[in-house]
Amino acid sequence: MKKVYDVLLARNEPKAEAFLDEVRGKNPLFICTIATTETAKIPGISAAGKYPEFTDYTPPADAELLLLGKCKCIKGVPVTPDGIPTPALITMSALRLADIPVMVASGGLKVKPFVPFLDLGGSAGRDIRTGSAVDDVEEVIQRATLAGEQLAKTADYLVIGESIPGGTTTALGVLCAMGVKAEGKVSSSMPQNPHDLKVKVVQAGLAAAGESCGSLAENPVRAVSCLGDPMMPAFAGLVIGGASQVPVLMAGGTQMAAVLAVVNALKPEVLCNVAIGTTRWVVSDRSSDLKGMIGEIADVPVLAADVDFGASRFEGLKAYEKGIVKEGVGAGGASIAAMAKLEGAVTKELLLKEIERNYALLMEKK
Amino acid sequence: MKKVYDVLLARNEPKAEAFLDEVRGKNPLFICTIATTETAKIPGISAAGKYPEFTDYTPPADAELLLLGKCKCIKGVPVTPDGIPTPALITMSALRLADIPVMVASGGLKVKPFVPFLDLGGSAGRDIRTGSAVDDVEEVIQRATLAGEQLAKTADYLVIGESIPGGTTTALGVLCAMGVKAEGKVSSSMPQNPHDLKVKVVQAGLAAAGESCGSLAENPVRAVSCLGDPMMPAFAGLVIGGASQVPVLMAGGTQMAAVLAVVNALKPEVLCNVAIGTTRWVVSDRSSDLKGMIGEIADVPVLAADVDFGASRFEGLKAYEKGIVKEGVGAGGASIAAMAKLEGAVTKELLLKEIERNYALLMEKK
Repeated sequence: MKKVYDVLLARNEPKAEAFLDEVRGKNPLFICTIATTETAKIPGISAAGKYPEFTDYTPPADAELLLLGKCKCIKGVPVTPDGIPTPALITMSALRLADIPVMVASGGLKVKPFVPFLDLGGSAGRDIRTGSAVDDVEEVIQRATLAGEQLAKTADYLVIGESIPGGTTTALGVLCAMGVKAEGKVSSSMPQNPHDLKVKVVQAGLAAAGESCGSLAENPVRAVSCLGDPMMPAFAGLVIGGASQVPVLMAGGTQMAAVLAVVNALKPEVLCNVAIGTTRWVVSDRSSDLKGMIGEIADVPVLAADVDFGASRFEGLKAYEKGIVKEGVGAGGASIAAMAKLEGAVTKELLLKEIERNYALLMEKK
Repeated sequence: MKKVYDVLLARNEPKAEAFLDEVRGKNPLFICTIATTETAKIPGISAAGKYPEFTDYTPPADAELLLLGKCKCIKGVPVTPDGIPTPALITMSALRLADIPVMVASGGLKVKPFVPFLDLGGSAGRDIRTGSAVDDVEEVIQRATLAGEQLAKTADYLVIGESIPGGTTTALGVLCAMGVKAEGKVSSSMPQNPHDLKVKVVQAGLAAAGESCGSLAENPVRAVSCLGDPMMPAFAGLVIGGASQVPVLMAGGTQMAAVLAVVNALKPEVLCNVAIGTTRWVVSDRSSDLKGMIGEIADVPVLAADVDFGASRFEGLKAYEKGIVKEGVGAGGASIAAMAKLEGAVTKELLLKEIERNYALLMEKK
């Protein structure tokens, strides 16, 4: 795989290289889209929180970490049940290294962060097994589009990330409903990807909604309303509004396939301005297939930060090499943006040092 | 009064000219800080709404007008009891002429706008006669400071405006409590400035809070908590965070004196980066004294857009020349920013034409 700086050109190499070239030395704005869904509380679905009930606190705590350098709504930082720290630690370190400004946007939350956030009019999501997962999808897309248009005027380009526990299951739901072959292809924050459980949950949701695989291929708004999560309309609207004016790096793992499917169904003409930015852990994951799903939807390039925690002195970071967490809070895209802004001066070694420094500081505080 | 473009250098001419010179040709971000207070519903206090109960809708409707070019939470646009349109019409026209991006920030609202807004953690304000007007002042200042710091990284400078009916009465409250001679000096959206009524309201608030004129000179947080409104902590924090990095134009009339007093008491060192931008209607108003109050607080320059609606073909706009409305929603500062960005290509004549065009369009829609 070809590499520029410490960025892997993981899919559609010429377009990926052209995107990186276009944003080199430029000033991005990073937007973290946060939301919650009850789907995350289904036992065995998400590792983004020490216990299922804690998943309500993970997105606001991630937002606080990005803006304050520490969490306020919880002690310490969000961790998996095994104590592995949130990828927001990577995002925060990358953004601070390159002095990239951050905005937090809420798609719908159960617990609000103790930091400023853009309210896009959404509410927290329900369990997708109800078949009625998200309210006001169209209105949130419209408001987020408006926000994306304004924010695009304040930066050379946008990097948009997400934090929503349970998000790969809702991604599978929307992809299935829209007819994208996604079974066995979405990623997981756990080393053992619970594909069977996710499929069961999605099937229950489709049945409750009176829909079937592919029945909503032309109706992305209903697909998200029935089987998605509140991050999706916020994220999709920001992409639509932003990419109508400037390049947009969609920063995330396999959840980006679901958002891309929504954007592609609503406004395909903006996709010439769009790339996906993720981590090496996602593109080299054998239990999921981001690139395969993207190929089914639209020919957008995929870039991956060549992060490597194998040499870390912290067990909590080393665990990332075992396939735990992998991505989230735009960690890969933020790393790519930092490398691009400083034209390679941010290397993966420098990034790991900064992450370790911040991790140590946060563990002391705790 | 010396003029550069159609901008009057109304106070501290050398500093005013230097500020204008610094922002010439630069790209600002306009932030509209909206909030509501029950104080606006005291009969005779505010003209920012057809009836006192309507004042809850004026700030969200103003925000919608800026972002959408029309209102959603009300029909038509906010008007005074005599049908004179909101100054947001001026702001929107100026920002669109110069393609200046807009963000809306809420300090605390009873009615939320149907557009994206930055939530700073505040709540709607109570009647200041209770002596307990605003909750969580310190927390909102902290969050707004954080937002100001991030937003300052996305623009060459910030222009911050406000929309809060009843705001000159709460300004009088905070100024009195902080020992600034403000009696008879705050402005009014009505042609007959009800100074006596405002003083009575403030005296009732001081008594209820167990405070007296000047007793809170060293305690701006308590002054706002007892006698202010929720726009103030949001606005003050944005100024503190923003002006620590870039120039900030505080866009408003006599309410800016109260915000300036708060900023001056909390973080005077940022004031070297601050100017006040208003309208000719405010600086030439004989029933108020913005410049006099500023002089008592800190030596910041005042600029005034030399707007003139005398030749307008619309009675609703001509009324501005009779001293109705005068300022609001950052109308003066937005006009100055548009003139400065395009280095004089936006003249007062061109601005009036654009305002008339938008006014005609909005009246048709209605």
